[in-house]
Amino acid sequence: MTRLRFAPIPAGLPATVPFTGPETLERRRGAAFRARLGANENGFGPSPRAIEAMARASAEVWKYGDPDSHDLREALASHHGVAPGQITLGEGIDGLLGLLVRLTLTPGDTVVTSEGAYPTFNYHVAGFGGQLHKVAYRDDAEDPEALIGAARKTDARLVYLANPDNPMGSWHPGKRIERALDDLPEATLLLLDEAYAEFAPDDAIPRIDPEDDRVIRFRTFSKAYGMAGARIGYAIGPAELIAGFDRIRNHFGINRTAQIGALAALEDKAWLDETRRNVSDARDRIAAIASENGLSALSSATNFVAVDCGADGDFARKVLSALTEQGVFVRMPGVAPMDRCIRISCGPAAELDILAEALPIALSQARAS
Amino acid sequence: MTRLRFAPIPAGLPATVPFTGPETLERRRGAAFRARLGANENGFGPSPRAIEAMARASAEVWKYGDPDSHDLREALASHHGVAPGQITLGEGIDGLLGLLVRLTLTPGDTVVTSEGAYPTFNYHVAGFGGQLHKVAYRDDAEDPEALIGAARKTDARLVYLANPDNPMGSWHPGKRIERALDDLPEATLLLLDEAYAEFAPDDAIPRIDPEDDRVIRFRTFSKAYGMAGARIGYAIGPAELIAGFDRIRNHFGINRTAQIGALAALEDKAWLDETRRNVSDARDRIAAIASENGLSALSSATNFVAVDCGADGDFARKVLSALTEQGVFVRMPGVAPMDRCIRISCGPAAELDILAEALPIALSQARAS
Repeated sequence: MTRLRFAPIPAGLPATVPFTGPETLERRRGAAFRARLGANENGFGPSPRAIEAMARASAEVWKYGDPDSHDLREALASHHGVAPGQITLGEGIDGLLGLLVRLTLTPGDTVVTSEGAYPTFNYHVAGFGGQLHKVAYRDDAEDPEALIGAARKTDARLVYLANPDNPMGSWHPGKRIERALDDLPEATLLLLDEAYAEFAPDDAIPRIDPEDDRVIRFRTFSKAYGMAGARIGYAIGPAELIAGFDRIRNHFGINRTAQIGALAALEDKAWLDETRRNVSDARDRIAAIASENGLSALSSATNFVAVDCGADGDFARKVLSALTEQGVFVRMPGVAPMDRCIRISCGPAAELDILAEALPIALSQARAS
Repeated sequence: MTRLRFAPIPAGLPATVPFTGPETLERRRGAAFRARLGANENGFGPSPRAIEAMARASAEVWKYGDPDSHDLREALASHHGVAPGQITLGEGIDGLLGLLVRLTLTPGDTVVTSEGAYPTFNYHVAGFGGQLHKVAYRDDAEDPEALIGAARKTDARLVYLANPDNPMGSWHPGKRIERALDDLPEATLLLLDEAYAEFAPDDAIPRIDPEDDRVIRFRTFSKAYGMAGARIGYAIGPAELIAGFDRIRNHFGINRTAQIGALAALEDKAWLDETRRNVSDARDRIAAIASENGLSALSSATNFVAVDCGADGDFARKVLSALTEQGVFVRMPGVAPMDRCIRISCGPAAELDILAEALPIALSQARAS
């Protein structure tokens, strides 16, 4: 026994990380990516008003950020028509998922998610000693009824559902989620990850009373608001649950400049609309590029498109690898049969031009190897 | 039992928070503070080069930050003469203390700290089910030998020591800490919080091999580098322990712009020197203001000064309250006998002018009440 020994749960965790950052890949290949289309970042960028607000706030970064994120929380409450006490903010949805798991999960509890869904959620479940039970995707979509059925069968404490989904971009009508909730077991809480909600059709968003004790929803400034590097996510749910975050969160953990930028971004509705148009155009363009190469693009309610490479996972991995070599950063689903696809983030036309140029080369290299 | 029930440890935690932010106090009093001297922020601000780098990086905040903080970590390793694998970064020392506790503490383990020392550390220990054992300050300073003696007696897993200390500003020679380490029990790890190290005399910093398995050190950009709102802290320690953070941390949790700003700040040694001079002058000025009012200032190796109000905690609380009413944000130690003091952060001359004007009024109000 040494002083450096870890506590029992961390001692059993692998040293692997959920995602390798593009900068790490760039250092490995010794060159910058020409197109950064792998992390579902929003290359159309944040609102110019947010940029200006953050630039102006830089000199004031000697002040801690408001630990209550009061102004931003009030604005979000008004935006969503909920009370400020029904919203908590955190260092991205990633950070909030970790806190929610810590707040609710007793080591040994079962948690249900989909095989191939968001790995960072699984990372947090393992990190707090939970037992993951995974349900298969159905038709390239997470399967709400199967997830809830598995929650019932396994007496799950938590069940995770992303709508729209990542990595496939698929989505369910809000009504279907509302109906599925009615079957949720008594002791199970649904985590509804809506990171991509702003890109989805209106009817994909379920109507849920924030005090509904069956569900907690997660939103972010990382995607539609183009502020992934700022680390601002938020959760909406029953005030009693939301208040629990204050017992364990890093109160001064949110960057001050980011809070100011997010508030400005939220107020710039015109930019959000323009982003939605840009993303929609980019989805069409990615589908067209896929089609020109004899591939098919899956429908998407997000800022990325899963492109079916037309064979198995090994082939798609070769395509991805050949794209990486050409300086195009994309990622792909981790499990079959979704791993027949590569996942391409929507970006500005110049980056999609590079994709258009690189994809046929990558395909022929993958076919030749 | 409802779906909203908390896991056993969080269920037993209080809903209180370690610190109330100045913005919350401002909202309560309905007006902004005229002088922000309470949170040991650095009102001399970050390096102009850091400000410029952050302003320039604002438009690129659509990218996630590098989860490895590669460039900043390499620069810090070089700065401290350690290997990059001996450094991990986090959302302030606060965030890193939480991770370290989670990584090493089994619920029920004992942790030793000083009565009246940094409350956020206690918050994390409670948050992961640790049992706090508190040792008294001696002569307004944390007592290394008593802390280590208590660690031995209680079979403590962790012991916390800040050098220089917060909230009193006192410090120990590095040699004394090195000697105390030799008495550290076999199973105890020392957390050495050096948040204020850059303000301290050189001989206050112990010489410790980063691979020394007895200790992990914490540093920050929040104080000397004037970037509290950026949320960048780091820990230096044995590579095996540092690697453990990767098992549990929020990999993408650090703001991208903040990483860029911190790197620029680290490179601007002239600004750090100027900040040190400014802080030293401000310490002298605070001592002079105290003296003009018949009070005595304690020696400080930090960017704040504990001013002895000359009576008990009730009196000091009245002084603090009267200062707050006049728009001067200061804080004070929480326990006797240190709570005879108020703690005033070093700030620009204009803010200290306001303090000079407000303090005699506050003292006469406190004496009259």
